[in-house]
Amino acid sequence: MHIFREIGPMKAYLKRERSNLSTVGLVPTMGALHAGHMSLLHASKKENAITVCSIYVNPTQFNNLADLEKYPRTLDKDIQMLVATECDAVFCPDNSMMYPAVSQLKFDFGALDKILEGEFRPGHYSGVALVVSKLFNLVQPNRAYFGQKDFQQFRVISRLVEELKFDLSLVCAPIVREVDGLAMSSRNMRLNAAERKRAVILYQSLKQTRDRLLQGESFSQLRKTVATQCNLNNVKLEYLALADRENLTQLDNITDPSRAILLIAAQVGDVRLIDNLFLTENSN
Amino acid sequence: MHIFREIGPMKAYLKRERSNLSTVGLVPTMGALHAGHMSLLHASKKENAITVCSIYVNPTQFNNLADLEKYPRTLDKDIQMLVATECDAVFCPDNSMMYPAVSQLKFDFGALDKILEGEFRPGHYSGVALVVSKLFNLVQPNRAYFGQKDFQQFRVISRLVEELKFDLSLVCAPIVREVDGLAMSSRNMRLNAAERKRAVILYQSLKQTRDRLLQGESFSQLRKTVATQCNLNNVKLEYLALADRENLTQLDNITDPSRAILLIAAQVGDVRLIDNLFLTENSN
Repeated sequence: MHIFREIGPMKAYLKRERSNLSTVGLVPTMGALHAGHMSLLHASKKENAITVCSIYVNPTQFNNLADLEKYPRTLDKDIQMLVATECDAVFCPDNSMMYPAVSQLKFDFGALDKILEGEFRPGHYSGVALVVSKLFNLVQPNRAYFGQKDFQQFRVISRLVEELKFDLSLVCAPIVREVDGLAMSSRNMRLNAAERKRAVILYQSLKQTRDRLLQGESFSQLRKTVATQCNLNNVKLEYLALADRENLTQLDNITDPSRAILLIAAQVGDVRLIDNLFLTENSN
Repeated sequence: MHIFREIGPMKAYLKRERSNLSTVGLVPTMGALHAGHMSLLHASKKENAITVCSIYVNPTQFNNLADLEKYPRTLDKDIQMLVATECDAVFCPDNSMMYPAVSQLKFDFGALDKILEGEFRPGHYSGVALVVSKLFNLVQPNRAYFGQKDFQQFRVISRLVEELKFDLSLVCAPIVREVDGLAMSSRNMRLNAAERKRAVILYQSLKQTRDRLLQGESFSQLRKTVATQCNLNNVKLEYLALADRENLTQLDNITDPSRAILLIAAQVGDVRLIDNLFLTENSN
């Protein structure tokens, strides 16, 4: 596997590959890789001649300095996992390469980046759009892979690709879960044993709300129930939202279940977790 | 010359050219071509195997609907000029191609898009950055050519390219002037004969201010003189600014002339004109 810490050699490598008409798949990550990332890599390897994984903890998407500092960094282990997956290249730049000058550019996606995560993490999606734009222009992939767990992020990036007409396809891969249902996340490793047990409440809340919504119960009532349950379990619910799958506009109730998604965010200890569930997808 | 009104055929053509290792130069325009544009085309033809000129009056960069409606459109004549210049391809899309959905994306460049033009045309540079990003991703040029006349635009686009890491070089070509010194502009054709004569005051003000600044006069005094002269000539001065060439921060006086630029904007009749002059460049 090629390990690129600098932009120039990576671009030269990709230029050579592209001149052989190889298609390139990009899996952008912040490292601390887990089975969720591996599923993105497998998807990319199936569909592209060359798969590039980027590992970069992007400071501009952190609205909270403590969160940035505590974000897990496990580069050696990540590289071992990528070698085992037969990833073709990893790009792990440092801040001076990605941000040679302090960024002064902000993106504003209208309502899409103000709701849900945007409300709790102001500026987060501007930083995401910025670093993803950089990666798209550096790697120039044919396809880029993102996990459904950050579903709002996927929608923001879809909007970015449409608006800026990036010449690539986006792929959204299903959430990979632990045995008890907890969505895989790099942040899970920051949970202690007790928090780890309590964290399953996010997924349980989603499933319970989905099942009862489909039985005709009202969302506002179900949200109250989840809030109470979280409270009892010492989990700080930030939001449980029912939204349109396409534009994430919040819904009061379901009219077309195939267009609806439930999204949740909560703090377990000092770790902030998110999860989501389509209303009409059994695989989750 | 290839005339592309749709994205697909243009991308297919450029893909073929690029597979022959042809370099591509892009000259983005809003049409109503004049000798200024021609100089950009000549520069591109010298440096690239293929030159693409885009002609698109981009609605999102107009903060004033009347200005958008009155913007000159001379497509047939433009195409004749491009054929005569031996331009390889022209891309003249319509709004449904460039904006299949209403745009909800805004760019914010911090101070850079709030000062000078940004103060008088709020949102202008967000629209410029958006359409230029689209064109960069559609054409994927090796080099893109812009005129110095819109110098703040050049700086905004430079910032865009740096921040998003677009894989291309930007070229800023000198202002082309009429015999009396008026900077060439598509908007000049909207001036009546009397306005056309008065319009030369922009360039005269720049030259006079430059010469006296270099002789040690104070900028604040020189600005007052220009304001008075514009008033007497029935020209509505919007700004005369002395700024740093790199970041366009306004200066009170010159310390290093080689880093300084004078910029002016004024309305002549109902036509808004801009111009600028480096302090240490004799060619202008």
